[in-house]
Amino acid sequence: MNRSVIIKILGYILKIEAALLLLPCLTAVVYHEKQGFAFLGVALFSLILGFLTDLVDIKSEVFYLKEGCVATALSWIVLSMVGALPFVITREIPNYVDALFETVSGFTTTGSSILTDVEVLAKSTLMWRSFTHWVGGMGVLVFLLAVIPLSGGSNFNLMRAESPGPSVGKLVPKVKSTARLLYVIYFALTIMEMILLVLGRMPVFDAITISFGTAGTGGFGVLSSSCADYSAYQQWVITIFMIMFGINFNAYFFILYRKAAKAFQMEEVRAYLLIIAASVAMITRNLVRSGLRFQDGLRHAAFQVGSVITTTGFSTMDFDKWSSTSKTIMVMLMFCGACAGSTGGGIKVSRIIVLIKTVLKELNSFIHPKSIKKIKLDDKPVEHEVVRATNVYMVTYIMVFSLSLFLISEEGYDLTTNFTAIAATINNIGPGLSLVGPSANFGFFNPLSKIVMIVDMLAGRLELFPLLILFHPGLWRDAFAQRKSYKIKEMKNRSKK
Amino acid sequence: MNRSVIIKILGYILKIEAALLLLPCLTAVVYHEKQGFAFLGVALFSLILGFLTDLVDIKSEVFYLKEGCVATALSWIVLSMVGALPFVITREIPNYVDALFETVSGFTTTGSSILTDVEVLAKSTLMWRSFTHWVGGMGVLVFLLAVIPLSGGSNFNLMRAESPGPSVGKLVPKVKSTARLLYVIYFALTIMEMILLVLGRMPVFDAITISFGTAGTGGFGVLSSSCADYSAYQQWVITIFMIMFGINFNAYFFILYRKAAKAFQMEEVRAYLLIIAASVAMITRNLVRSGLRFQDGLRHAAFQVGSVITTTGFSTMDFDKWSSTSKTIMVMLMFCGACAGSTGGGIKVSRIIVLIKTVLKELNSFIHPKSIKKIKLDDKPVEHEVVRATNVYMVTYIMVFSLSLFLISEEGYDLTTNFTAIAATINNIGPGLSLVGPSANFGFFNPLSKIVMIVDMLAGRLELFPLLILFHPGLWRDAFAQRKSYKIKEMKNRSKK
Repeated sequence: MNRSVIIKILGYILKIEAALLLLPCLTAVVYHEKQGFAFLGVALFSLILGFLTDLVDIKSEVFYLKEGCVATALSWIVLSMVGALPFVITREIPNYVDALFETVSGFTTTGSSILTDVEVLAKSTLMWRSFTHWVGGMGVLVFLLAVIPLSGGSNFNLMRAESPGPSVGKLVPKVKSTARLLYVIYFALTIMEMILLVLGRMPVFDAITISFGTAGTGGFGVLSSSCADYSAYQQWVITIFMIMFGINFNAYFFILYRKAAKAFQMEEVRAYLLIIAASVAMITRNLVRSGLRFQDGLRHAAFQVGSVITTTGFSTMDFDKWSSTSKTIMVMLMFCGACAGSTGGGIKVSRIIVLIKTVLKELNSFIHPKSIKKIKLDDKPVEHEVVRATNVYMVTYIMVFSLSLFLISEEGYDLTTNFTAIAATINNIGPGLSLVGPSANFGFFNPLSKIVMIVDMLAGRLELFPLLILFHPGLWRDAFAQRKSYKIKEMKNRSKK
Repeated sequence: MNRSVIIKILGYILKIEAALLLLPCLTAVVYHEKQGFAFLGVALFSLILGFLTDLVDIKSEVFYLKEGCVATALSWIVLSMVGALPFVITREIPNYVDALFETVSGFTTTGSSILTDVEVLAKSTLMWRSFTHWVGGMGVLVFLLAVIPLSGGSNFNLMRAESPGPSVGKLVPKVKSTARLLYVIYFALTIMEMILLVLGRMPVFDAITISFGTAGTGGFGVLSSSCADYSAYQQWVITIFMIMFGINFNAYFFILYRKAAKAFQMEEVRAYLLIIAASVAMITRNLVRSGLRFQDGLRHAAFQVGSVITTTGFSTMDFDKWSSTSKTIMVMLMFCGACAGSTGGGIKVSRIIVLIKTVLKELNSFIHPKSIKKIKLDDKPVEHEVVRATNVYMVTYIMVFSLSLFLISEEGYDLTTNFTAIAATINNIGPGLSLVGPSANFGFFNPLSKIVMIVDMLAGRLELFPLLILFHPGLWRDAFAQRKSYKIKEMKNRSKK
């Protein structure tokens, strides 16, 4: 394994994080908060660590998918470990595991919190929490690719490891240009939301943080009531932008290049919008039946459906108190997730389309055994390898899910709590049901369970394999063996001299 | 589609069912019960229907997998629809949907009941309930293959459609001999259990019915307390036989041919026994902690684990009252299921082994991209087609599961009830948790939910595809188109004359 390049990438990440930490510093200056010093201190620490990596020489340019995965997984871990420090230093979250949970939840755009009351936090801390969503949404390595020249296969392999969805589409031939384009779209949409919210009389601070949370499909709010206290107009703006950030970014690329028709012909986008429409219709019916006015029922249904399918996790209503059918729909949306190539988590609509088509093809093969039709998506045949990988992905997902469920069950909470806690973290949503419902938090779990969920959040955001290979003994055996062979070579060289 | 052969097979099934119904008739004679007339009447009705099919001429010997699946699915449906009639006629289960639920639950060896109190039923009815388990356990078509000469590819395609597990192993070269051998082993083990139970002073009637339930991994008991009132010795005998009927029958074949060592070298059998041992150990620890004596804890843990992993569904204790970890283990065992080629349901241990190996292989491919190792089971490479089918099976399973969960959620019960009700029926277990726990029943669901669960029980027993293709519009389009083309040909022939 090419460790020198990985260390180099981690160095870049640390320097970027130092820069990112300046935003909460700035917030502290505006609001005259002493917490700013904690952020400044951690920024300096991060910068120094980053420069220390410059001491390492790059020995080889070799950079395979393995290196891409390890670099990605370690980047996210380092980013979170450093990003958690300010919470501990300001004593706002004194326990480091809790702080790490909160930070991983931020960067992975989960939005599950261990805090009971977010309104007691400093503005700078709230800004940092929401900003982690924005950074994690598009992916920090994509950002790295947009600004820093890396050679060899490193670009594509990094992008492959961090990007959500069954296959990576390069929008334009060069990875670097793709990464930049993605950030431009991301940035523009975020600013648009901020403006629309401020025009609707939302305080500027709320507008900025909520827009960060929406863009990254995160879910950390700045009020204890999440989004319940905002006006109907503000809630509709958030709803529409949540749904927009759950759309495959290729669609915006098409719109940008004046091919809007092509954007709406994308099978995944259409399926995604159809699932939303059907869920909103069913839940609105149930809410109206339970006594809400139609316009309120529609608004709450659209907000909650948009929030959960995009795995954002904001709420305007406690859906744990909804009817059984509505709750079942919500749990299914938790697993469904948004489009591939968006900032949302979950299994992804395109994977579900491929899986449904696989099943239909299998059924068909019983009736027409000689048929050799390929599965198609957007009228193009889906590569056999993508179908296979999607199947394996599902199986791996179930295994990680089951193991996590088993590990946290030791604490003795009810099945619904445990099941939805894992669903909420592995799908990067935020709230679950029962004890982890929208009006509750994750603070009551013990540190072991929190660590399980930290791993799940990272596994969910990185789409399993880049994180899981860190647990593969072969990886460390290889890395160790290499080191040994290096040493042996060195010793031989010395003895020759 | 070759409809004439399918009708012929259904005719055989009806004649066999008429014969099977003689056992409850005989029981009625022994206990002087008037219910016997209902069973006799239905037996005659079934026999007449069976003979009516003799009027159909076999037009072609063509018999593909499609025909095998359709014949199997329809056989099970016809068997259940007729088998439900006695319950309605005796007014013991006056509602036909309820009676059908009970009968499908019997034949599919599920053991979920809609009855509150089984002790008020006539002995002949109890015998019929338990006997359906025994018949359904080994498969009625396997029985058909053992006794009736069928030509063409029909033998193997029928066996493939009815047998559990990812691939069908022919024990001996001829399907007929394999089917006979399976029944001999099945019969011998059942008799052994009966004798051991009677030696332990169990009433003969209980010994017979409980042995039928154990052999088929069914779960209908004859006491309201299921097996809680039997002695420790009797419970241990049932435990050991439940576990034995969950073992791949190939193992008994090896033992029969004096290759016992080979039986215990089977990877699936070893994994199955290991899962049982680990689960029993963990649950015993939890039960002892909660105040039970060690020997009681061990007995209850072993009984419940054996009952759920083999998908039998007997109980000696209400595991819904166990600790959260123990309950989570039980839910996982519900999905795990027994060995392929046994009478148990669930996903099957061998599928789980293949799936785990698929995931490990995928992880490995990230580290060694050029490795082309094949997945191995019992030191033999697993065919690519089996791996693919196993993956597709899992995906289909999840979809059927999700759809069923959604459909029954309309009734408004809690998530745990709905989730475990579907798990208990699709895996052919019997009891779930919460409202469908071991001390409860399925009577409170509305007819629509019951029909969903009837479909799930059949889908689970027939391993999804043979049942699902009945819902494929292409099948009926083909069948209809064929009929039309027949008619057109006929008309042409006539006009020629």
